Amino acid sequence: MDTLLARAARGERTERPPVWLMRQAGRHIPEYRDIREEYSFLEAIKTPEVATEITLLPWKYYQPDGLVMFSDILTVLEPLGFSYHIESGVGPVVENPVNGPEDTDRTFDDVREELEYVGALLRRLDDSVGDETALIGFAGGPFTLASYAVAGEPSRTHLPLRKLRARHPEAFRDLLSSFAEVVREYLQFQVDNGADVLQLFDTYAGTLTTEDYREFLLPLHQEILADLDVPTIVFARKMNGRLNLLEKSGANVVGLDWTVEMDAARDQLGETPVQGNLDPSYLYSDPAFVRDQTRNIIEAAGPEGHILNLGHGVHKDTPVESVEAFVETAKDWEW
Amino acid sequence: MDTLLARAARGERTERPPVWLMRQAGRHIPEYRDIREEYSFLEAIKTPEVATEITLLPWKYYQPDGLVMFSDILTVLEPLGFSYHIESGVGPVVENPVNGPEDTDRTFDDVREELEYVGALLRRLDDSVGDETALIGFAGGPFTLASYAVAGEPSRTHLPLRKLRARHPEAFRDLLSSFAEVVREYLQFQVDNGADVLQLFDTYAGTLTTEDYREFLLPLHQEILADLDVPTIVFARKMNGRLNLLEKSGANVVGLDWTVEMDAARDQLGETPVQGNLDPSYLYSDPAFVRDQTRNIIEAAGPEGHILNLGHGVHKDTPVESVEAFVETAKDWEW
Repeated sequence: MDTLLARAARGERTERPPVWLMRQAGRHIPEYRDIREEYSFLEAIKTPEVATEITLLPWKYYQPDGLVMFSDILTVLEPLGFSYHIESGVGPVVENPVNGPEDTDRTFDDVREELEYVGALLRRLDDSVGDETALIGFAGGPFTLASYAVAGEPSRTHLPLRKLRARHPEAFRDLLSSFAEVVREYLQFQVDNGADVLQLFDTYAGTLTTEDYREFLLPLHQEILADLDVPTIVFARKMNGRLNLLEKSGANVVGLDWTVEMDAARDQLGETPVQGNLDPSYLYSDPAFVRDQTRNIIEAAGPEGHILNLGHGVHKDTPVESVEAFVETAKDWEW
Repeated sequence: MDTLLARAARGERTERPPVWLMRQAGRHIPEYRDIREEYSFLEAIKTPEVATEITLLPWKYYQPDGLVMFSDILTVLEPLGFSYHIESGVGPVVENPVNGPEDTDRTFDDVREELEYVGALLRRLDDSVGDETALIGFAGGPFTLASYAVAGEPSRTHLPLRKLRARHPEAFRDLLSSFAEVVREYLQFQVDNGADVLQLFDTYAGTLTTEDYREFLLPLHQEILADLDVPTIVFARKMNGRLNLLEKSGANVVGLDWTVEMDAARDQLGETPVQGNLDPSYLYSDPAFVRDQTRNIIEAAGPEGHILNLGHGVHKDTPVESVEAFVETAKDWEW
């Protein structure tokens, strides 16, 4: 399988940049809101036919070069024994968060069995997605998952987890390792069920000091990403100035948040393929502005090893016509 | 006046690094909690004798090289006609946030009159602070103030303000400019009333793309900081990899958040003085760990132009003995 997206992920020169958007399936699409009147978020991700329908919605509008499965970065909490639900106005709430430093070295249930609904989703999608479109799977990364598991809810500062690091560094290490093992198995499971490209979202990892990142997290990213037989992308925010830590994860592609200037990314990373990185808030502007800004990013990235994406997920009330302008700019490009 | 802090701020070699902590006056100190049983936060900052007492509390414990006035980065909202209060569990709530793009080009009242309580505080402090200790004043920066003024409350993503930038760039520019004018006048007022050193906290500015930062914000930082007759420090988070944007503000000192490795900061900034940058969550660890980590930062920064500080404000339940270990490490240092 040799999609445009896979080729760019391997650093090849492509005739135009492949394009997809983080969180493209969902929130900003009108039909999604209709579906969600019938199913809660967790019901939708756990019901393969519903999740398939949602995954394919962006296709109707934009024909991106990759279709990312409609799922949640937190699904792997459950094989580790954490239950969670989504609370309106709050976000994910973990009902049984980590109960002190003794509660961090966790065994896990059979990932393939517990997350079979994701396997089923990927198999369905594999049947519906054409040969030229990459089927993108993903998982949350250890720091990000652990932040929810310790705080029990979204945390702006991630302070509960950072306190665990300060007070009980070995417990912190154990917790991240437990997550890394599950994530590793989960990503392999996604490959076995048809994922063509994988993205590891350790979105909040940049909250760590560089020294802690290097000591506690980088080896786990390396373990997770080793031996996966498809192109991989790693994404974390607040990594500007130290993008080499993402590069060292072993991922094929370094995902860039919108605060990284593309020229600076290329300076830091040399020929390593990159993904990104339009500011998602720019999509609230008019299509002409979106086109201009998107062109600037494509120009700065150059023809080799660039996957066009946003610098973070699509916001929920983003106008469809801006997303169209964004995708079309890539699709009409000619190097 | 030639305090250790002012000398380091000018880039001189100092026999040891001067030290203070962002948010040192307040929350983590036991006596502060007693005072707050009698006065609300806003009452405390607006009552010069109370604010003086709180400002001096860290002196009893730590004898830092700088005493930062007990105040709020949001005080300048009021001269621009915004009323706000602090809501428990939420933070600052602006009662009359910006009401659309027509509401952004604002005139302001006499800053010296409206914020006379800050002048009174500084004059009192100027009388109590010894010659060797720097009296530190501060203000919020335009992006950070505008985020509160537009969102009406703390915003994790600053999306309301970023939407204004996308949809109404001229209104965004006007709003930032209005804040810059007030802040400029306010900082001059602080100098006139005895501040020895000033810090501009545009904490959230790093949320902007580099291009927007350069276009909309940097000229305002330059205007604000020009012609102030005392050493100045500029602080914003998420600026790693583009610290030169802070340097270009004209501030004497670039404040570093904890995600910037000190070596990398020196690489990016050359001889420009820096301030920082222990991870404030490290203070939850034991004093030995705090000492080790603090020593590493001092060593990496070297003897010239370094003010030791945290990489963000002190968290509220931080143990006093960790802060002692932090301050003492600087005070016992000999280059």
